[in-house]
Amino acid sequence: EQSICLVVRDADAEAAVAALEAAFDAELRRGDVSRVYAIPESAVVSAVGDQMRHQPGLAGRMFATLGRSGVNVLAIAQGAAETNISAVVRDDEVAHAVRALHEAFPMRRTRAHVAVIGTGTVGRRLLDMLGAQAPALLDGHRLNLRLVGLANSRRMALDADGIAPADALARLGDGDAADLDAFVAWLLESRLERLMVVDATASAEVARRYVELLEHGIGVVTPNKRANTLDLAYYRRLREAAQRREVSYHYETTVMAGLPVMFTLRDLLRSGDRIERIEGIFSGTLAYLFTRLGQGAAFSEAVAEARAKGLTEPDPRDDLRGEDVARKLLILAREIGLAVERADVAVESLVPFHLAEGSVEDFLEGLKETDADWQQRVAAAGAEGARLFYVGLIEDGRLSVGVRAIAAGSPFDALQGTDNVILIRSERYHETPLVVQGPGAGPDVTAAGLLADLVKAAELMP
Amino acid sequence: EQSICLVVRDADAEAAVAALEAAFDAELRRGDVSRVYAIPESAVVSAVGDQMRHQPGLAGRMFATLGRSGVNVLAIAQGAAETNISAVVRDDEVAHAVRALHEAFPMRRTRAHVAVIGTGTVGRRLLDMLGAQAPALLDGHRLNLRLVGLANSRRMALDADGIAPADALARLGDGDAADLDAFVAWLLESRLERLMVVDATASAEVARRYVELLEHGIGVVTPNKRANTLDLAYYRRLREAAQRREVSYHYETTVMAGLPVMFTLRDLLRSGDRIERIEGIFSGTLAYLFTRLGQGAAFSEAVAEARAKGLTEPDPRDDLRGEDVARKLLILAREIGLAVERADVAVESLVPFHLAEGSVEDFLEGLKETDADWQQRVAAAGAEGARLFYVGLIEDGRLSVGVRAIAAGSPFDALQGTDNVILIRSERYHETPLVVQGPGAGPDVTAAGLLADLVKAAELMP
Repeated sequence: EQSICLVVRDADAEAAVAALEAAFDAELRRGDVSRVYAIPESAVVSAVGDQMRHQPGLAGRMFATLGRSGVNVLAIAQGAAETNISAVVRDDEVAHAVRALHEAFPMRRTRAHVAVIGTGTVGRRLLDMLGAQAPALLDGHRLNLRLVGLANSRRMALDADGIAPADALARLGDGDAADLDAFVAWLLESRLERLMVVDATASAEVARRYVELLEHGIGVVTPNKRANTLDLAYYRRLREAAQRREVSYHYETTVMAGLPVMFTLRDLLRSGDRIERIEGIFSGTLAYLFTRLGQGAAFSEAVAEARAKGLTEPDPRDDLRGEDVARKLLILAREIGLAVERADVAVESLVPFHLAEGSVEDFLEGLKETDADWQQRVAAAGAEGARLFYVGLIEDGRLSVGVRAIAAGSPFDALQGTDNVILIRSERYHETPLVVQGPGAGPDVTAAGLLADLVKAAELMP
Repeated sequence: EQSICLVVRDADAEAAVAALEAAFDAELRRGDVSRVYAIPESAVVSAVGDQMRHQPGLAGRMFATLGRSGVNVLAIAQGAAETNISAVVRDDEVAHAVRALHEAFPMRRTRAHVAVIGTGTVGRRLLDMLGAQAPALLDGHRLNLRLVGLANSRRMALDADGIAPADALARLGDGDAADLDAFVAWLLESRLERLMVVDATASAEVARRYVELLEHGIGVVTPNKRANTLDLAYYRRLREAAQRREVSYHYETTVMAGLPVMFTLRDLLRSGDRIERIEGIFSGTLAYLFTRLGQGAAFSEAVAEARAKGLTEPDPRDDLRGEDVARKLLILAREIGLAVERADVAVESLVPFHLAEGSVEDFLEGLKETDADWQQRVAAAGAEGARLFYVGLIEDGRLSVGVRAIAAGSPFDALQGTDNVILIRSERYHETPLVVQGPGAGPDVTAAGLLADLVKAAELMP
């Protein structure tokens, strides 16, 4: 079975069909030729080179590139001279197809597209890094990472031809009013190859769009803990969509920012290890508080001090409730395969019940009532050669977040300032744990982690 | 320009060519038809499905798969019924092409092939893990990792149809006499897609073959420190070949075994960070010695004890010379872009000059003369609140390996047993370093690291 395809001018198409139908009249009636038809408004896109037939993979690269770019190939022709491979595509897809092939062929570069949602400190640092690292990524990794969209809660800018990261905030200022539906719809319809969304917000609304994005072959890279801590059914849909569409969903920065935690766990699991216990300090703010507490500071004093240094949320109760640590623990637990919900995390809140409401000032004042209790707890731990830390713990399938007395001699001892630490014990790391420690928050290390996730995602997307 | 291709039986080919030449006699003479020719011993391989023309990417996947598998596509035909895409290939490539397409299409699995060199403790553990993890990798990651070769210094076994990991050692026992040239030649000629060699030896002879393998599109995954510590010119050829051929060269396990070190550095660099200082303990044996020394053991005693526990090489001088640590430091330094040779590493050997030769027993006896000196050094450090460690350090472009007194309060304090630790300070991890700590040697964690590297390599290979 064979289709023979001739390219003629649109104006001649009708006459050509009529002429061929007349010439093949007998064959058409016998069924030897099934039909003669014209595809209007088409164009031929060719790759030309020496000895192309003897270079296995060139045709593959060409059609794979067109496929990834969402270009419909209507017909394929290999020239008799063995110097070209041609594809017939719709007229309105020519520019798109040629641009994609230019990227794929001469320099063998990988082209990937990025849309960033969120222009807080992390989002803005990421834009800086995208601009600064673009030449190195192109030279060193043949990766052409193009920004095509930016949005925050007020405005949005979209441009398939690319937005220079340095101009992005200005372009956003001149952009349309923010409309998440319209933003997502534009991405879904853009057919840009290796398209990834960076969600640099803390918004549940944005997180609820991930499944839709992934199902349409759009990657998601995020430090936003929301999506992975929604109900388990949504979490499973996320994972399933990413796997089915072979598209990257990377959230390394949700736990301990740029430190290598999620990919380390993934590597352990993929090589067949079984995680037995995860223990760690996942809040820089609380790490700082307990260091000061250990040094003899009163609890209320340490909280006020941390707030003055900008280490806490505007209302420090948002840190002291332990909710952020509980979310990180939930993400870790799900990553190692536990079917758990947020409600399964036992959380010790450091906010006394009667101080849960009211102004921040009243809260800080009221907290002084607890200083004596804290002093006693610290002393009791010290008497046993231990120190207090606010720890997240996964053990025997149970998740708990709260204050624990840790005996001297552990990696917790060396913690400085607001550093985080994670201790992973597994079948293979059984006697002594695998430990990762360092600054686990901050715009710089988070944005750097996002960029590393983006590069990995672009490499992995087919 | 169009080539029209008809498939006829080989026996009819000559007659078909003659008939077409007669029919197109006038066109051939005018040059409207350039030539009529037969490609003997060819076959048509087709992918059949509903509405294939409207599924962008199917043709791409098909030709990309054939290209990766090294199959020459002689002609391409899209059926008029829009239900199939066909390729003409050489007869002797049919089985190969169909097998590759079966893998690529129905389950959308990634097929990768592995040949393992070295059947020491690490190589054997890797074979166990390959067998144990195969079902999970196939289900969870759609990765079909097939063992096709195994060799050690005595024998080798090769089979393109796959070798069950559980049978591999038995197959090796019945295999041919080892011949590295023949082994490599078989791999180069196998045209197996996503082929990777695991070098689980410590051989420089094997390491010298990496460039050749990479240049032929074969990935290399290894814990063998040799290749990365040969001269800089070879190192650069390695990196260049891997980059040019877009093929994976992974050596995460050369430094601190399965702990996340090399990929962590790579992520930092790719996101534009600048490494300022790397400091660490890269020898479990020496970590153990200095822990015992700090606990008051005599140096000669600690060495004899470590040897009795199997923590040292048969001749402990192979550890005490610091050569292994120097190599790891060289690998780290080159990874962060320093153009350095082994000779640029200043190494403090712990083997007294006059004990460099002679039997192990004489060495252990002679070492007692140094006990008093060591005791003094330990005491001097202790007087300043510090402890001695055998440290590798990269700072200001200089590499040094030797004994250093480290003040209390550092992550070194929490080291247990034979654990390793690395402290990475960079522009972004400036105030406090990024720390990775844990067991940095052993067959289990090394083999697990190799398997994780293999999975990453298979994912990244095009």
